[in-house]
Amino acid sequence: MELRLQDIAKQLEALEDTIIFRCIDRAQYAQNRAVYEEGRFDFRWSNEDSLLTYKHRFSEETDAVLGRFRVPEERPFFSELPEPAESLKDTTDVGLYIEDYNSINVTKKIRQAYLDDFVFTGLSKKDDGEYGTTVELDIFCLQALSRRIHFGAFFVAEAKYQADPEVYDALIMAKDRTGLWEHLTRQSVENAILQRVEEKVQKIQEVSKPDVRVRIAPQVLTAFYKNHIIPLTKEGEVQYLLNRVR
Amino acid sequence: MELRLQDIAKQLEALEDTIIFRCIDRAQYAQNRAVYEEGRFDFRWSNEDSLLTYKHRFSEETDAVLGRFRVPEERPFFSELPEPAESLKDTTDVGLYIEDYNSINVTKKIRQAYLDDFVFTGLSKKDDGEYGTTVELDIFCLQALSRRIHFGAFFVAEAKYQADPEVYDALIMAKDRTGLWEHLTRQSVENAILQRVEEKVQKIQEVSKPDVRVRIAPQVLTAFYKNHIIPLTKEGEVQYLLNRVR
Repeated sequence: MELRLQDIAKQLEALEDTIIFRCIDRAQYAQNRAVYEEGRFDFRWSNEDSLLTYKHRFSEETDAVLGRFRVPEERPFFSELPEPAESLKDTTDVGLYIEDYNSINVTKKIRQAYLDDFVFTGLSKKDDGEYGTTVELDIFCLQALSRRIHFGAFFVAEAKYQADPEVYDALIMAKDRTGLWEHLTRQSVENAILQRVEEKVQKIQEVSKPDVRVRIAPQVLTAFYKNHIIPLTKEGEVQYLLNRVR
Repeated sequence: MELRLQDIAKQLEALEDTIIFRCIDRAQYAQNRAVYEEGRFDFRWSNEDSLLTYKHRFSEETDAVLGRFRVPEERPFFSELPEPAESLKDTTDVGLYIEDYNSINVTKKIRQAYLDDFVFTGLSKKDDGEYGTTVELDIFCLQALSRRIHFGAFFVAEAKYQADPEVYDALIMAKDRTGLWEHLTRQSVENAILQRVEEKVQKIQEVSKPDVRVRIAPQVLTAFYKNHIIPLTKEGEVQYLLNRVR
């Protein structure tokens, strides 16, 4: 199956809106650091997890049963999840050349970056007590980020490979991570993404008055794209190419 | 505790953006009617539910344990849910005068309206196979709608009561549903909501090109507000007042 980079780029662009929507919704609440503290709440089944970890694992266990992680762009944040009861989607040919989707999984880094450089950087330092909503919205954000990053990692890498197989084969044979990274990089495309994200964050938030909805500075999200989303996508692309089945 | 209608109206206005974000995200996928057909999938624990029902109930069971439904504006779509393991939020005084929050629960009507007049009216009639994502986004939409409608039902009703107790007491004593409905109605406020929603749906979607993101007609959402969100909120307000503890 031929993958066209142009189509994949459109899908990545579409996923931007979802990421922005969810980050703006999360920003309506304060940091609420209590939800990230391990052992803060005494749950029925665990008193060692943070509330975020507890709810997120629960959510992935349900989703695993429904087959969520059979799709390449949906990589789990947790391990030892139950087997799917049924595949809801035919995932036999999506056009990738990889044996184990989970050989590309940057979710740990996504979670750390999200907490450090979005929640603890972009949001109010207060505690508004809305803990349940906070972790729900955190999970929505993490899922949107992971979907975008892994979708790019798999499909952009394969499309770029198909457009230029000889050069990529040589870099893969040499296990040249730096060479792959450089050959995957399109600086003008990255700059266009950052500019577009800035405009979107600005315009979407203009629909409500600042005394009605909390606004986040567009720079918080453009910095997040520049420092995390784009590099983690490329890191995943390099992993994909090094694991590509020849 | 005094409730100010002005503050509550701002919160309802803020919840609009979340509803619009989630409906736009859902519209990126087709109707996918298979997910609403009972018995279509053979799950491990049930082969009678639709996929939406199955996942939504699972999600509410987790949320119930975490105490989601101790908050008045979060009313469950399902019954016989587990008891909360811990209350994450102090819900002792939110300023309402009601014994059982669940005496106001219009979730059945919300779900029916959402399917009939959003999914089956506003979305592409195709089947794109993205069943897992479809039901996930459905649940996000239903939760946003329910939160807005029930928040209004409880808090708008109480604030309006506090501003005008004699008239409301007389209507409540007479169990005059029509009179309560009319006295709660502010036509100019409702018109302003519809106009604002139309502008928001329009402007939020303008950030992406139509070949990148599916667009929904703003009229789909303004009609949904007019025919369902506003009337169901008022229906909930009437229920609240009739159940109000004197």
